[in-house]
Amino acid sequence: MRGDFYHELAPVNSTMVTMAKAVRESMRQASTALLAADQSLAREVTVRAAEIGVLYRVVQDRVLDLIAGRQPVAGDLRMVLTASSAAADLERMGALAVLVARAALRRHPAPAVVAELAELFREMSTVGDDMAAKIVLALADHDAVLAAQLDGDDDAMDRLHRQLFSVMLSPDWPLGVEAAVDGALLGRYYERYADHAVNVGRHVVSLVAVEAQ
Amino acid sequence: MRGDFYHELAPVNSTMVTMAKAVRESMRQASTALLAADQSLAREVTVRAAEIGVLYRVVQDRVLDLIAGRQPVAGDLRMVLTASSAAADLERMGALAVLVARAALRRHPAPAVVAELAELFREMSTVGDDMAAKIVLALADHDAVLAAQLDGDDDAMDRLHRQLFSVMLSPDWPLGVEAAVDGALLGRYYERYADHAVNVGRHVVSLVAVEAQ
Repeated sequence: MRGDFYHELAPVNSTMVTMAKAVRESMRQASTALLAADQSLAREVTVRAAEIGVLYRVVQDRVLDLIAGRQPVAGDLRMVLTASSAAADLERMGALAVLVARAALRRHPAPAVVAELAELFREMSTVGDDMAAKIVLALADHDAVLAAQLDGDDDAMDRLHRQLFSVMLSPDWPLGVEAAVDGALLGRYYERYADHAVNVGRHVVSLVAVEAQ
Repeated sequence: MRGDFYHELAPVNSTMVTMAKAVRESMRQASTALLAADQSLAREVTVRAAEIGVLYRVVQDRVLDLIAGRQPVAGDLRMVLTASSAAADLERMGALAVLVARAALRRHPAPAVVAELAELFREMSTVGDDMAAKIVLALADHDAVLAAQLDGDDDAMDRLHRQLFSVMLSPDWPLGVEAAVDGALLGRYYERYADHAVNVGRHVVSLVAVEAQ
């Protein structure tokens, strides 16, 4: 355990845990807003995005201070830079939650997700939320085992994503173009959310590997 | 002009220019493949993506070496880190070109873009290509004026993107769900391509601002 530099990285990591919690809450609210056509919840997501933006800048500033103040090299430097890039992934996950919330608002008071796709989106949002929960814990506890599970979760998300397209593109699809266009874009947002979660997981795995050196 | 550190950053910048050229060429090929249903061109894009990945790792390694070897602080450090983040944007632009190429392959020998949308996609690809061309030049010449034009180009892309949706969602849309789903996703890829180009432009603007200090 490289106790010294690990200690220095703690404030960066701690802000990233706060960020991850805010991102998770944001996507939970966005998903509920989407499935229940809840307008006020959707608006909360756009407010929370500003908080996530502030946290992201805090991480970036701390990374700069850390590099300038401690001048880390090799593994330590790599560790700080992957933390910075994982924070960018978290910020993007927050932005995707905003896109989901905006989709909910765009069709309000009608639900943006038609009944035929609601179950699939419920599953996608559950998989996404499980992944976000793992990120929070993996970052907080430096748990590489949990972080490594994210690849498998991402496969589950990809399966749901493919299923979504096969439903919408089947000759039996009873609904029009608008519902399918909304479905395609929303599916893409959840799929990207999962991709970014995987990146954050990889950061935790590499962080733990460096720590163990 | 801070001649010293500027000189050190030159190899990073030079690799980023090569990356930007490869990304531009990649999206040009993907767009042609898409509009002309050209299968072999679409395959070239997926090959080129590997080259872009290698160039991205070269940039990352050079950034690490530079920080570890020169231990820059303040503006110099910020400059290296924004270069690294702009390289991540370029890498993502290459990935979006692959998604466009894959869409072209998925519907081959039919064109993935229906005749009704071909003109709009031609315009989106032209705007995207102009933006990529500006990035190449702005990075090569440290041209902040050119880089600052990218925001306006992005507005043009957003207008085309909105136009795309109004065509697909109009009651007169003569085609089915599949064409609209493809259109929605492809539109999203071009729109994101432009967003990342704007980020690269911001890097050049901040680079030039630091240089001028």
